[in-house]
Amino acid sequence: MRTNNLPAMLADGRGEILLVGLTPPRRSASEERVKEIAAVTLARLDGLDLDGLVLYDIDDESDRNPDERPFPYLPTMDPAVFHADHLGAWSRPTVIYRCVGKYPEDDLRAWLGEVDPDRVATVFVGPSSGAKEVRTDLPLAHAAHREVRPELLLGGVSITERGDEHLRMLSKQDRGCAFFITQVVYNVDATKSMLSDYFYACTERGVAPRPVILTLSVCGSLKTLSFLKWLGVDVPRWLANALHHAADPLAESYDQCLANARELIAFCRRLGLPFGFNVESVSIRKAEIDASMRLAAEVRQLLNQVQR
Amino acid sequence: MRTNNLPAMLADGRGEILLVGLTPPRRSASEERVKEIAAVTLARLDGLDLDGLVLYDIDDESDRNPDERPFPYLPTMDPAVFHADHLGAWSRPTVIYRCVGKYPEDDLRAWLGEVDPDRVATVFVGPSSGAKEVRTDLPLAHAAHREVRPELLLGGVSITERGDEHLRMLSKQDRGCAFFITQVVYNVDATKSMLSDYFYACTERGVAPRPVILTLSVCGSLKTLSFLKWLGVDVPRWLANALHHAADPLAESYDQCLANARELIAFCRRLGLPFGFNVESVSIRKAEIDASMRLAAEVRQLLNQVQR
Repeated sequence: MRTNNLPAMLADGRGEILLVGLTPPRRSASEERVKEIAAVTLARLDGLDLDGLVLYDIDDESDRNPDERPFPYLPTMDPAVFHADHLGAWSRPTVIYRCVGKYPEDDLRAWLGEVDPDRVATVFVGPSSGAKEVRTDLPLAHAAHREVRPELLLGGVSITERGDEHLRMLSKQDRGCAFFITQVVYNVDATKSMLSDYFYACTERGVAPRPVILTLSVCGSLKTLSFLKWLGVDVPRWLANALHHAADPLAESYDQCLANARELIAFCRRLGLPFGFNVESVSIRKAEIDASMRLAAEVRQLLNQVQR
Repeated sequence: MRTNNLPAMLADGRGEILLVGLTPPRRSASEERVKEIAAVTLARLDGLDLDGLVLYDIDDESDRNPDERPFPYLPTMDPAVFHADHLGAWSRPTVIYRCVGKYPEDDLRAWLGEVDPDRVATVFVGPSSGAKEVRTDLPLAHAAHREVRPELLLGGVSITERGDEHLRMLSKQDRGCAFFITQVVYNVDATKSMLSDYFYACTERGVAPRPVILTLSVCGSLKTLSFLKWLGVDVPRWLANALHHAADPLAESYDQCLANARELIAFCRRLGLPFGFNVESVSIRKAEIDASMRLAAEVRQLLNQVQR
């Protein structure tokens, strides 16, 4: 049975979780415009049977990749501020990302002290490259969480494209991470390999595997495709070819996301790994955001088809 | 409609082809023993609705990989001799492999001159490494085919693990190859990428894509798994993990081969690429050979489910 209590689902590793991931409005947006965006967002989410929302913390990641960013970097609102000031009408839990390198440790500690752990979980994200100057590094942020607010559910990001990701996950788990949210996944084999490595490494060490939330994003244009690649997402060549030749790349990528969800559900259930999905749109085009909402609804149906 | 005429199916690129791949008996086997093996083989194939048989030409490939070969290399009979002398009762066509480096060019030309192109097709295989000393190299063998017996259907091997395989396929196609048979495939994404790259490269050049026969092999033990890896087959980590932990690796790999077949059928049909399957067992254990025969029967059912 689902509980509509995301922190409990994450803490206990039970249920199959469905989240939608959103980017807060631009920092340059007027108060009026932010209100409008919040209202439109809540209307979009209405009727989707979600366990929670994910709010990203966008950082300038130009150090990650020397190539030009296909979509320009625009500073966005602090997700904690957007959540606290504008999403009061959202009655379900929210996972608030924190690019910890952006914040002085004291600010992070202050936020940890004031947040409501029944309504909020967090994901700490480290710097996008080793060269980046940070205000707080990831181990320090993890230590702050343990000291100030260990009861706040803390998650980590996981990146399927790295071959040893399961070791990084285990080390984050040792430092207090109770769940993981992946980067966008398009390479199902690589994702299954990461999940499998993680599951069996947990078994070997005698620790319970933590829920892994798999992120899906539609890809409605070749520009979005190039952005996914810029972000480091491994899009299989056959799929990139199909998107290049498709009359309707959005429909093509939608079908593929759904096929991937189906395969990953079967795989995680068979393995016995707690899991879930986070559906987002890496593009801000309306058609792609609308498609991601439809995708979330259809993933919920898939999850409902056979509940464990 | 299927025609039971493999050379025509290969030449015209129509129909979905099902083959079974076999290794001839050891060269050390007595005449008596070879007869027995031929009889057992034909009994096994009886009832399978195949378009043809594949007979491998086994070469000492120790130069391919410095690691110890998990199964020892044992010289096997010339597949053309096994076919001519012992498989007379096999009424359907046969694809006879030729590791061309093993043969002086004159011997290859003599064989090309005497073979029956209505009953036989061939696949020329180049040396397993560039360092190997060869009697005839692949381009020379291709030229001999063009001169001596262009009407004999000639195929090439394709190896999904190489990123630029579609270019090699096109170049083999230019030299007379009318179809391709892959190495064992376990990485479906890599296989789909190769097929997609090949298909679109053909489209760009305005040439018709040739049939690609995808080779499946069950993997019934960790020793077979290590042999597949030794052969250069990319077995996804999640599947290798599953085989390591499975109570019954043969059943696990069987299910996976079937799932892969299902996915590859859907992919090739959607793409419009002529294709087929070649089912073999890289191990000579009876349980694995029996499973490969069951797999061939089940793949035939899949192919029958929706005929193009």
